[in-house]
Amino acid sequence: MKLLTYTYPDGRVAHGELVDEAAGTIEEWGDGDLLGTVTAGAAARNGAAGSSGDQQRATVALDQVRVLAPLQRPGKIICAATNYQEHIVEGGGTPVDKQRTSPKLFNKFDTAIAGTGETFVIPEISASADWEVELAVVIGADCDHVPVEQALDKVFGYATANDISLRKLDNIGFERDTENPWVGFFDWLEGKWANGSAPVGPYLVTADEVGDPQNLPISLTVNDKVWQSGNTKDMIFSCAELVAFASRLCTLHAGDIILTGTPSGVGATTSTWLADGDVMVAEVAGLGKLVTEVQKAR
Amino acid sequence: MKLLTYTYPDGRVAHGELVDEAAGTIEEWGDGDLLGTVTAGAAARNGAAGSSGDQQRATVALDQVRVLAPLQRPGKIICAATNYQEHIVEGGGTPVDKQRTSPKLFNKFDTAIAGTGETFVIPEISASADWEVELAVVIGADCDHVPVEQALDKVFGYATANDISLRKLDNIGFERDTENPWVGFFDWLEGKWANGSAPVGPYLVTADEVGDPQNLPISLTVNDKVWQSGNTKDMIFSCAELVAFASRLCTLHAGDIILTGTPSGVGATTSTWLADGDVMVAEVAGLGKLVTEVQKAR
Repeated sequence: MKLLTYTYPDGRVAHGELVDEAAGTIEEWGDGDLLGTVTAGAAARNGAAGSSGDQQRATVALDQVRVLAPLQRPGKIICAATNYQEHIVEGGGTPVDKQRTSPKLFNKFDTAIAGTGETFVIPEISASADWEVELAVVIGADCDHVPVEQALDKVFGYATANDISLRKLDNIGFERDTENPWVGFFDWLEGKWANGSAPVGPYLVTADEVGDPQNLPISLTVNDKVWQSGNTKDMIFSCAELVAFASRLCTLHAGDIILTGTPSGVGATTSTWLADGDVMVAEVAGLGKLVTEVQKAR
Repeated sequence: MKLLTYTYPDGRVAHGELVDEAAGTIEEWGDGDLLGTVTAGAAARNGAAGSSGDQQRATVALDQVRVLAPLQRPGKIICAATNYQEHIVEGGGTPVDKQRTSPKLFNKFDTAIAGTGETFVIPEISASADWEVELAVVIGADCDHVPVEQALDKVFGYATANDISLRKLDNIGFERDTENPWVGFFDWLEGKWANGSAPVGPYLVTADEVGDPQNLPISLTVNDKVWQSGNTKDMIFSCAELVAFASRLCTLHAGDIILTGTPSGVGATTSTWLADGDVMVAEVAGLGKLVTEVQKAR
């Protein structure tokens, strides 16, 4: 199922299922975002947690509403750095030996969440905003120390995401000792936190519909030029391995989101940065196109 | 005012003001944690957002309830690394030149929140859990690009906190290339995320009662031995500077928490790690004692 959160012109937020993609027909399940559906777990995955019966559910035309991010305020947004070998190489690194490394996780905050069609405003603190299409995993059950073999059982579904990144903070009101590697780390981390820097959507697609998350074409265009074109089979650590690893660091809750890293083709490789008026379209096959317009801070 | 969140034996959560500290009398303001009070802002700071009149408010004895963390699920927990010169020096670093550096921020997740009296379970992934007493700043108004001079106007109040840190992840199921400085950085960051690793409380003390946040004795004992004893005047970046800086990276919301760094005296300096049965008492003067018992994972 393709689930989505949306808002009416009067501001009311609701969620439902895209029951007819060609016709653009949504069956409305209830008010608010999809968090209740996700936390309700398996019952909700079968549609049973919607209203009291299919015949009572209203249908809505997709073009009558504005799609929002599926989850408006996830408890955690955990992101994997450098999880595709070709992205490491394009960044000037050498391919990692999986036997001698582990997932490298960082975070984004709630204020990074955005939906498709929303504008990303390049903050005035950076002149080097960049794109990173990623497969987002949405956790569907609380879990702690879940084994790799059981990790995908804890996944509610998947979505297209974009880990928009400020590659350099060059207007923050402080001089920085850039020879100190720790300064570089914190610059890098803080450059992941901009408002709207985690567009997710348009759909949250249930795990049963996606099947194997490690065989999905993943791509991103800027102004119709293809910059990223990869496949999730090339992840160094699989979705299952990332969920299992993260769940050893802290308890994961239903509704938490894990971004699983980006393939090669980011702008940084050629010092190409997002500019006013650019339009990014990120897509993971089957999960829908995630459109983000870019604007410079005025 | 000293505000607090607490739970009754039947599980009901409520919040209120400690109106008589000597007698341990709480005036109950309402159900749930203090988030509504914090987001209600200035009115709430004056008690006006409580129930419909002082005479109608019930009082509760502190010893009839169990104190919880003031905010159960903050939207953001932003933490400052290396914000006291003596802590940098004890870690083997050289004092930073404030003219050539900036605040170094990282995060903890919602699952790190704990209240006074709760047990911190040392996860099996690390043998080197350590303490860090810190002053916690609780944001009281949404803010974006707030100037340093106005930043404290955006602060609702303060609390004692402990940034419990796993100094080394040595049992996570992966070999690690520790010669790679980026591996060290992610190890360090992921070591900040353990469940219960951000005890906060017992009170959320309103900014008017605290006055100048840069002149507060701050200390921590383990099993009654004093390990940390400093003063918030020795922060490199003040609370106001940290709030201002963070608000340039992303929008801060009422209820977000900023931990402001720890003075010297952590266990790492002498490779002294938390052990089963240890009791930490963290205290910022006027903000109450934050007690955390330690247990090894069974």
